[in-house]
Amino acid sequence: MGSASVRERLKKAATAIFRAGIKAVDPEDCINRRLRRTADTLWVDEVGYDLAGINKLYVAGAGKASAAMALAVERLLGERIDDGVVLTKYGHGVPLRRCRLLEAGHPVPDENGLRAADALLKLAAAAGPADLLLCLFSGGGSALSPAPVAGISLADKQETTRLLLACGATIQEINTIRKHLSRLKGGRLCRAAGGARIVSLIISDVIGDDLDSIASGMTAPDAGTFGDCLAILSRYGLEEGVPAAVRRHILEGAEGRAEETPKPGDPAFARVRNLIVGSISDALTAAGREAGLQGFIPLILTSMLHGEAREAAKVVCSIALEVRRSGRPAPAPACLLSGGETTVTIRGGGLGGRNMEFALAAGIELAGLERVLLLSAGTDGTDGPTDAAGAFADGSTVLRAQALGLSAVRHLDGNDSSSFFAPLGDLFVTGPTRTNVMDLQIVLIQ
Amino acid sequence: MGSASVRERLKKAATAIFRAGIKAVDPEDCINRRLRRTADTLWVDEVGYDLAGINKLYVAGAGKASAAMALAVERLLGERIDDGVVLTKYGHGVPLRRCRLLEAGHPVPDENGLRAADALLKLAAAAGPADLLLCLFSGGGSALSPAPVAGISLADKQETTRLLLACGATIQEINTIRKHLSRLKGGRLCRAAGGARIVSLIISDVIGDDLDSIASGMTAPDAGTFGDCLAILSRYGLEEGVPAAVRRHILEGAEGRAEETPKPGDPAFARVRNLIVGSISDALTAAGREAGLQGFIPLILTSMLHGEAREAAKVVCSIALEVRRSGRPAPAPACLLSGGETTVTIRGGGLGGRNMEFALAAGIELAGLERVLLLSAGTDGTDGPTDAAGAFADGSTVLRAQALGLSAVRHLDGNDSSSFFAPLGDLFVTGPTRTNVMDLQIVLIQ
Repeated sequence: MGSASVRERLKKAATAIFRAGIKAVDPEDCINRRLRRTADTLWVDEVGYDLAGINKLYVAGAGKASAAMALAVERLLGERIDDGVVLTKYGHGVPLRRCRLLEAGHPVPDENGLRAADALLKLAAAAGPADLLLCLFSGGGSALSPAPVAGISLADKQETTRLLLACGATIQEINTIRKHLSRLKGGRLCRAAGGARIVSLIISDVIGDDLDSIASGMTAPDAGTFGDCLAILSRYGLEEGVPAAVRRHILEGAEGRAEETPKPGDPAFARVRNLIVGSISDALTAAGREAGLQGFIPLILTSMLHGEAREAAKVVCSIALEVRRSGRPAPAPACLLSGGETTVTIRGGGLGGRNMEFALAAGIELAGLERVLLLSAGTDGTDGPTDAAGAFADGSTVLRAQALGLSAVRHLDGNDSSSFFAPLGDLFVTGPTRTNVMDLQIVLIQ
Repeated sequence: MGSASVRERLKKAATAIFRAGIKAVDPEDCINRRLRRTADTLWVDEVGYDLAGINKLYVAGAGKASAAMALAVERLLGERIDDGVVLTKYGHGVPLRRCRLLEAGHPVPDENGLRAADALLKLAAAAGPADLLLCLFSGGGSALSPAPVAGISLADKQETTRLLLACGATIQEINTIRKHLSRLKGGRLCRAAGGARIVSLIISDVIGDDLDSIASGMTAPDAGTFGDCLAILSRYGLEEGVPAAVRRHILEGAEGRAEETPKPGDPAFARVRNLIVGSISDALTAAGREAGLQGFIPLILTSMLHGEAREAAKVVCSIALEVRRSGRPAPAPACLLSGGETTVTIRGGGLGGRNMEFALAAGIELAGLERVLLLSAGTDGTDGPTDAAGAFADGSTVLRAQALGLSAVRHLDGNDSSSFFAPLGDLFVTGPTRTNVMDLQIVLIQ
């Protein structure tokens, strides 16, 4: 069949484009692009650090990609590393020679995480003004390293987060409170590091690459205050609802009897450099380059896609339809690229993730169209509680499903995208990619 | 204040860009661009009609812009028009000399609409093979001209539509059924016209400009069948729920005992030309040209924007943020343009329309950003049950509202966008524009 072979060709092209995107944010590549060593100088971009003039060199890492980042750092600095603690998710470790590799629970923090957070803080505390602390942060770093302040238990923190989520608090509000319950987050790691030079290399998994959001900004200033925390609790009527220890700590802080997080301009940041070394923008740029090699005119729409997955799919597809119709905003053969993180409001009890749901909605939008194909997938290789990274959709998706007795609309209604795409053979499976810069959408219009 | 004057300047530029878009779809301009007269030839684009060889020339119009379209036709053809019936919404009439102007109810059909539909059918029935019927359709034509088949009342048709809407039937499904209950829609006007030549000039108010959707496709083939109608009723469990007369008619039709709508390829269309003379695409093109004159690089994203207004706003704004951040998909100063028709799921009891709700959601997305402004407005000059066409939003919207005691999030939750923008002075008021090609979104990034 002509259209089936076109579909296979577009699937192949989209896969190559996705892989090029992933390759650009491979943790080792991210480190190697920004770090160089010449004789006794460590170059971080254009800034040189005289290794001979540095007393001790420490490595601190936390996040799903951080062990792989540490491997690249070890290859570069080897014996020059005096000590290191690198914390990652169970199963995400790689053998390290100079750094101590610790694994902990994610997304639900556990006891190993508590111990690992202590190890990170102890490492930082060992550093002095003549030392260099090289931090390696990536998505998940926050949940992996719970470090509640004295008197507050891990369970207290988790209950507080749960209550805020249930009240519809924003992620910014939740983070403001979390940072004020932590010994590590909201820049506190810097304060612990006793005036050492700090270089943080960060792979971003948040929209907009806000330094104070990735891994809860352990080395970034925090604009929020205990007063803000109090206002947030009051906004959601939670002054009495949160655990007593949490309430007490926030009240004490608001009265100036607990230590504030370091603010922008705080001396703790005088010798700190935070550098995003990998982000969805890098993945998009590389994906766009590969799309060009594959014969498509690349158009990067946004690195900040968000909102309800099925609605975002309508807008992205409406742009694809316009390409086909009028050659705007780019003439075919075109490749529309977007990245970010959509959300799914759960309505049904089905199995799927935000990428597959995006693809399912796109399948409905593109129904009947020829020579158009969409791939939406998570750059970490997983999408929701499934083994696939995402799914392909094209103009034949709805009809081919119908032939198998599957209704696209009904599966979308039930958030049941995985069981929709599996029998079609249109799941996109990569296995773990060892990195995470959110999701990537690729639309090919030939 | 510097930022206030930047805002005023961007508001002015957006207004000029919007007005340029509207001007391109002015009904008279639309007609004058496509119709010319040289001596005894009427040119419709590149096709000439020998006026001397035509016996009678009739004009039939239905829609909110159709009286204004007829005015342009009268100016061109004057005394050559033998008879005409032009149907528009109350208050949308303009004095016509050769055509009979009729006004009727919209969006709720009324008795005057029933009479007007009969007049249209009677006019068509007077036409023969030597005659030319010039049709002028625009949005609203369908509701303005209810023509239920014998035995079915206007109330029966309305009740059927209401039931289908309540079941979540798609607009395509509803139209399939409506066309099978009408003596005018789904191409039946052509069949009534007894082999006359027909030229339909159409201003589109539907996404994708489907000929069979605009004014219910009075001169376009209908792919749907009575069998499809039956399947739709059964899909929603409405076989017994619809009024008895409707059920009876559809059952008779499915058994071949009622006349089907003319299908693609039907001889009724052999001498019919359907031409879109105005659409949101034309408005976008003209708006883009004006944006260029105002110093912005125009990028037309889509003419087919749809989906939930607040979610579509997130995607459009995420593209604007990307322009600011990385100069992609276009470098600043840029003007992002989109058109189409979003929807609003009513949650609160507030006052507003889909454009104001889009702008309100955009205000939240753009909060804090400088030199970015969005205008979303209906090209007909109205947005929901308000006097405004839409609203402006920018990075200062949320804060300026806060200063007046207004919460953007709360107003969005309550679908209460009109009372949010009114006190800010950010409503966009044009008065009726005499045309309608859905909505236009303009985002300026300086």
